[in-house]
Amino acid sequence: MAKELKQLTSRTVSYSQWYQDLVIKADLAENSAVRGCMVIKPYGYAIWEKMQRQLDDMFKETGHVNAYFPLFIPKSFLSKEAEHVEGFAKECAVVTHYRLRSKADGSGVEVDPAAKLEEELIVRPTSETIIWHTYRNWIQSYRDLPILCNQWANVVRWEMRTRLFLRTAEFLWQEGHTAHATRDEAEIETRKMQAVYAEFAEKFMAMPVVKGVKSASERFAGAVDTYTIEAMMQDGKALQAGTSHFLGQNFAKAFDVTFTDKTGKLDHVWASSWGVSTRLIGALIMSHSDDNGLVLPPALAPFQVVIVPIYKGEEQLNTINEKVAGIVSKLKALGVSVKYDNADNRKPGWKFAEYELKGVPVRLAMGGRDLENNTIEVMRRDTLTKETITCDNIETYVKALLDDIQANIYQKALDYRTTHTTVVDSYDDFKAKLDEGGFFLAHWDGTPETEELIKNETKATIRCIPLEGDMTPGVCMVTGKPSVQRVLFARAY
Amino acid sequence: MAKELKQLTSRTVSYSQWYQDLVIKADLAENSAVRGCMVIKPYGYAIWEKMQRQLDDMFKETGHVNAYFPLFIPKSFLSKEAEHVEGFAKECAVVTHYRLRSKADGSGVEVDPAAKLEEELIVRPTSETIIWHTYRNWIQSYRDLPILCNQWANVVRWEMRTRLFLRTAEFLWQEGHTAHATRDEAEIETRKMQAVYAEFAEKFMAMPVVKGVKSASERFAGAVDTYTIEAMMQDGKALQAGTSHFLGQNFAKAFDVTFTDKTGKLDHVWASSWGVSTRLIGALIMSHSDDNGLVLPPALAPFQVVIVPIYKGEEQLNTINEKVAGIVSKLKALGVSVKYDNADNRKPGWKFAEYELKGVPVRLAMGGRDLENNTIEVMRRDTLTKETITCDNIETYVKALLDDIQANIYQKALDYRTTHTTVVDSYDDFKAKLDEGGFFLAHWDGTPETEELIKNETKATIRCIPLEGDMTPGVCMVTGKPSVQRVLFARAY
Repeated sequence: MAKELKQLTSRTVSYSQWYQDLVIKADLAENSAVRGCMVIKPYGYAIWEKMQRQLDDMFKETGHVNAYFPLFIPKSFLSKEAEHVEGFAKECAVVTHYRLRSKADGSGVEVDPAAKLEEELIVRPTSETIIWHTYRNWIQSYRDLPILCNQWANVVRWEMRTRLFLRTAEFLWQEGHTAHATRDEAEIETRKMQAVYAEFAEKFMAMPVVKGVKSASERFAGAVDTYTIEAMMQDGKALQAGTSHFLGQNFAKAFDVTFTDKTGKLDHVWASSWGVSTRLIGALIMSHSDDNGLVLPPALAPFQVVIVPIYKGEEQLNTINEKVAGIVSKLKALGVSVKYDNADNRKPGWKFAEYELKGVPVRLAMGGRDLENNTIEVMRRDTLTKETITCDNIETYVKALLDDIQANIYQKALDYRTTHTTVVDSYDDFKAKLDEGGFFLAHWDGTPETEELIKNETKATIRCIPLEGDMTPGVCMVTGKPSVQRVLFARAY
Repeated sequence: MAKELKQLTSRTVSYSQWYQDLVIKADLAENSAVRGCMVIKPYGYAIWEKMQRQLDDMFKETGHVNAYFPLFIPKSFLSKEAEHVEGFAKECAVVTHYRLRSKADGSGVEVDPAAKLEEELIVRPTSETIIWHTYRNWIQSYRDLPILCNQWANVVRWEMRTRLFLRTAEFLWQEGHTAHATRDEAEIETRKMQAVYAEFAEKFMAMPVVKGVKSASERFAGAVDTYTIEAMMQDGKALQAGTSHFLGQNFAKAFDVTFTDKTGKLDHVWASSWGVSTRLIGALIMSHSDDNGLVLPPALAPFQVVIVPIYKGEEQLNTINEKVAGIVSKLKALGVSVKYDNADNRKPGWKFAEYELKGVPVRLAMGGRDLENNTIEVMRRDTLTKETITCDNIETYVKALLDDIQANIYQKALDYRTTHTTVVDSYDDFKAKLDEGGFFLAHWDGTPETEELIKNETKATIRCIPLEGDMTPGVCMVTGKPSVQRVLFARAY
């Protein structure tokens, strides 16, 4: 019965319903009482913590430090960088008052009209404006540069249609904001962080990504260039997994941030900003999971191994407990995170289904016969294959198995992407194949008009102009005009 | 010149100006463009990260998990627990609209009046209401209990008079929210977390605290009992450093959260909540620092050791670099965090002043004569004493020195508290001595009226009813009525 409750909609029936079921049933997140805002449940948050820790280490290794800037942004700040406000700053949570009062009839509280703010405050949708306002006081000379700050924070964008992790009104993210003395340095930083994101996606999330640059119409509002990593989900749609923006001197000019260079000349500061969010959890789910539940890469699983005892009576349980304790400590000594679930309120079958649903990479089970034979049953979540092996050196076996799982799910995702990436040369061909999903490499004449036409007719967008791969020029599949290189088209999340 | 810029107001001239100077000049935090909201600068944030990591480990060791709940709370939720809203929920940031629009005259953006929320949203001042609303769906039976969640988050309380770290409109904190099947279990949890906070304060912050219970008038709004840890600052004032609340069934009743116990009986769930915030950074500063700047306990210093080379010419610098590299790697192998500052844009004197100001626990300096003699100069920040010692086994020497500094600053703070704690028996005596500052142990008749009278006449409040120490009954210093035990009075931050 419990098992049926956990049943997911099959991906072939409805991919989006499968996703929704999985997020809820694996206890990752749920909708809250506040429209569009999610509650991230402990198991989902544990994945985020793993991601955070790894990314934070990588940011620090590349010379960044963390800081914290205000949640609120004065409304007037948003008007300072014209493209920035035009681009996306409209759908925001606006704070207009700072006090409640008890209602006269005692029925609750109401907003105190006397406590109206002189200038409304916007809950940050992103922090370029407040941070560049702050940097103005931090920067006088080239000696104050570079500034390499990151912040872990919540942001709010008032989305109308929301979806757990993928698009929520409030989400958690990190935003890096760097300041540099030269254009070159800022551009190197921008690309460096794109590379950090790509490495994180591929090595830790086991999710292959295409590195590229956004077309002008898909650029971050206020950026000169937006670098992106694009991943393919199992339904063939693209997901933008992280972006790194070269901001030129736009925000420095808007907030009047100048510095004296080594020659004594005054110039505006150069900038980058870059971010990834809890959206990555959605990407992780949709990259690897199956109809039985989550499939997590060992590098980001809240725990990598679960051990379940199968026993008759307390005496046998005690013997298993003792035997398992030795295995647990050997696994931990190798840096493997492990949970031993000998709780007596659930049957082994229930536990098996539960940990399968939650995507624990390796499950070990030990029963009476295993005790006799000095063996243990090993199941790997990615292939669902089982084998019974000796307990001798089980820890090195499991350690190697985890590496194998990490490599295997990456390869599987890469193979999927390879077989679902099509090189097309005619627009008819493009339109005909688009419904099958996947990435399309096609020539484009570089104009926003052609891009817009394709988007309107097909709902496919240019995900990026790839930085690697085939760089041969050609002719646009729509207009026949010259094209510098193929670009990546897909329908996207 | 640079050194003068770093000069702090002396504590004897103005303790509050000294504090303000120190926070700014040591690059810990600054005021932002948003009234009452601070920017936590990288060095200040690095201290917070150290605190977070340690506390998070302690929470996890005691069985807690992290989760994340929405930033916004529907206005109606605040009315549900009557005492809660009466107590403090009034000074809040209120979101009334969800969209901006461009002004017709093109001069910027304005709030779109069409985008008014049906129900206003409150930026969380604390999350009991939204969390207990969520727990309602998580809890059916005793099998779902206990729930032991913590969240790291930002909260907003619209304070009129703010002070960096100590009282800001937005601050960072953690809030634990637990749910239990029995009163007993919830009370044990409440006290357990008070003990965790006390251990953190004493072992890591090197800040002695008094553990106690709040009087009814000082209790958290909606709590049955508030447990607190109270620390003494160097000006003799008290600072509430952390609180843990036993909430009884108050929030479960307000949000209708019930469970079926083992016998099949339906009951309301029992609760605790507990939190510490970035205010702890203020407490840390005011516990140990001096007129030269910060004094940080090694356990929470962003880096524990700084090494400065004193050299003439590149060749000598290279020799020092080589020698120091060996010391650095030996220190790191012992788990000591170390920064080698051989930047050539600042003189050693400037660096010495800078790291003194920033409270780096140990400074090592190596010059030409040290090279010849295989020695190094060691300065400890807490006592500012210097000695020149051999480089042989310098790492074990420094490691032991760090432990000694940690113990010494704790002892110094404890001694200060001991000499500034007075047992008083008459109200006249109490009033006469109060201006000298410090803690006062006095008898109180247990009534809110007497407490209120003392507060109005002296600005001193009951910080707590101590859980340890002298438990002898007596008579109230004001009314002469019976008193169960002495309570702790002080003026407070």
